[in-house]
Amino acid sequence: MAKVQARIESALERLLPAAAIAPQRLHEAMRYVVLGGGKRIRPLLAFAAGEAAGAGADPGRLEILGCALECIHAYSLVHDDLPCMDDDVLRRGKPACHVEFDEATALLAGDSLQAFAFQLLTEQRLCDDPAVQVEMLKILAVACGSRGMAGGQAIDLASVGQTLTLPELEYMHIHKTGALIRASVALGARCSNALGPAQLEHLDHYAKYVGLAFQVVDDVLDQESSTATLGKTVGKDAANNKPTYVSVLGLARAKALAEELRCDAHEALATLGGTAQRLKDLADFIVLRKF
Amino acid sequence: MAKVQARIESALERLLPAAAIAPQRLHEAMRYVVLGGGKRIRPLLAFAAGEAAGAGADPGRLEILGCALECIHAYSLVHDDLPCMDDDVLRRGKPACHVEFDEATALLAGDSLQAFAFQLLTEQRLCDDPAVQVEMLKILAVACGSRGMAGGQAIDLASVGQTLTLPELEYMHIHKTGALIRASVALGARCSNALGPAQLEHLDHYAKYVGLAFQVVDDVLDQESSTATLGKTVGKDAANNKPTYVSVLGLARAKALAEELRCDAHEALATLGGTAQRLKDLADFIVLRKF
Repeated sequence: MAKVQARIESALERLLPAAAIAPQRLHEAMRYVVLGGGKRIRPLLAFAAGEAAGAGADPGRLEILGCALECIHAYSLVHDDLPCMDDDVLRRGKPACHVEFDEATALLAGDSLQAFAFQLLTEQRLCDDPAVQVEMLKILAVACGSRGMAGGQAIDLASVGQTLTLPELEYMHIHKTGALIRASVALGARCSNALGPAQLEHLDHYAKYVGLAFQVVDDVLDQESSTATLGKTVGKDAANNKPTYVSVLGLARAKALAEELRCDAHEALATLGGTAQRLKDLADFIVLRKF
Repeated sequence: MAKVQARIESALERLLPAAAIAPQRLHEAMRYVVLGGGKRIRPLLAFAAGEAAGAGADPGRLEILGCALECIHAYSLVHDDLPCMDDDVLRRGKPACHVEFDEATALLAGDSLQAFAFQLLTEQRLCDDPAVQVEMLKILAVACGSRGMAGGQAIDLASVGQTLTLPELEYMHIHKTGALIRASVALGARCSNALGPAQLEHLDHYAKYVGLAFQVVDDVLDQESSTATLGKTVGKDAANNKPTYVSVLGLARAKALAEELRCDAHEALATLGGTAQRLKDLADFIVLRKF
């Protein structure tokens, strides 16, 4: 994991426009939000899915893909932290982008990072087969859009002050965080041509479980951790009157759900054999992490 | 022109997610900002470039491309109007998106429209050759990003209160409005395979001149029109202490520059012959329009 994380950090460092290139302040902001932080969960999932797909998944391709996924993820955090959204000042232990720079720069840095992620997926070396590459671009676009991540944010905002049922809460998170996590696994697998439709479907089931588990654990940590260890403001959802797995289920049942989803994720990989070991390890990491 | 405008309106109506699909408010906002307004300059340029490229450019492909260009353009207007950017309340004669809905919805509608534009360019029917399609996606991504449109916005914001030279003003507009206009022509031409590198370069020169002319005329109209005829707040740049072609050159020299750019645009098309007539007409329309 540390190896993939270091590889992604160094690739992002290299691929993002240098801070010396105009417009400098915008490029500084893009680098500020992408570099030097984060667990790189989405690239880790992509690399692990590439490994599960067998020998065909070239690490150089997974690296580009991983960088694109991190750019999308970082853009979503920057826009999410803006005053008109969650209005948060702390992210990854540092001032949020709009605090360190300004709101307009944060808005444009997010917009630019989304475009940059699509640009990365058009790199020639990503794929031998341009038809598959177009399909990959489509998977990312759908995952980011109004029926994916951005739509999930909209549902999240609409849920403030609402009492949600468990299915409603799941529906929100399947979009808000789940869409990009599913795309990470689907795109990682497509860096190889080794998997058939049935196996891609198993991977997708795995990704759905892991995506939900990720959010359940986030909600548990938000309840149990301090702002210092988490590097972001804790208790924010409660303060904003937003439903969470903990508020809907209580702490004990939320923890049990995370454990159940971890087992479901393992089971989804049953037919894939040994190459899926790293995906299993990641499900464990996501559920058992402390921060 | 009216035929292409009606075709784009109806295609957007059909392709954008229906307002009845969840998340409804977000989809309503996306439709609100894209449908029912605008001159559709970018699709018009794409169609005309496709025509200049000869028989190969299928109108069905140009239609999808035109919709993608309008989604990018609309997203940029929505984010541009936000309080942290130009803080404008009027757009195309209607309340700006964040006024009609709210800031968070406007932010997410813009984000979603950017993703949706890339999704449209992944449509199978856009292109016979997926390698060309990947190239088209790259052209759009670069045009939208930090060294294109979003970068131009950043330069624009940084110019508030500054005295710019003419080259500095040009540099800003080449990015802010020029990048997407160049992409419109380049992508329209690539809906056919009929043009060689030299002809594509002539088209690109044309697009650069037209992009600049467009902005010069915008600045002139901003000075000479009323808010009612223009459908957006006039005199805003002056009020925001932003440099314009009129503030840098004066009204008479700005008008002369627009005319010069119109002639340059015509000349760039000299070797292309009769198929480029509609591009010439569009250069005239852009420079001679009254609103």
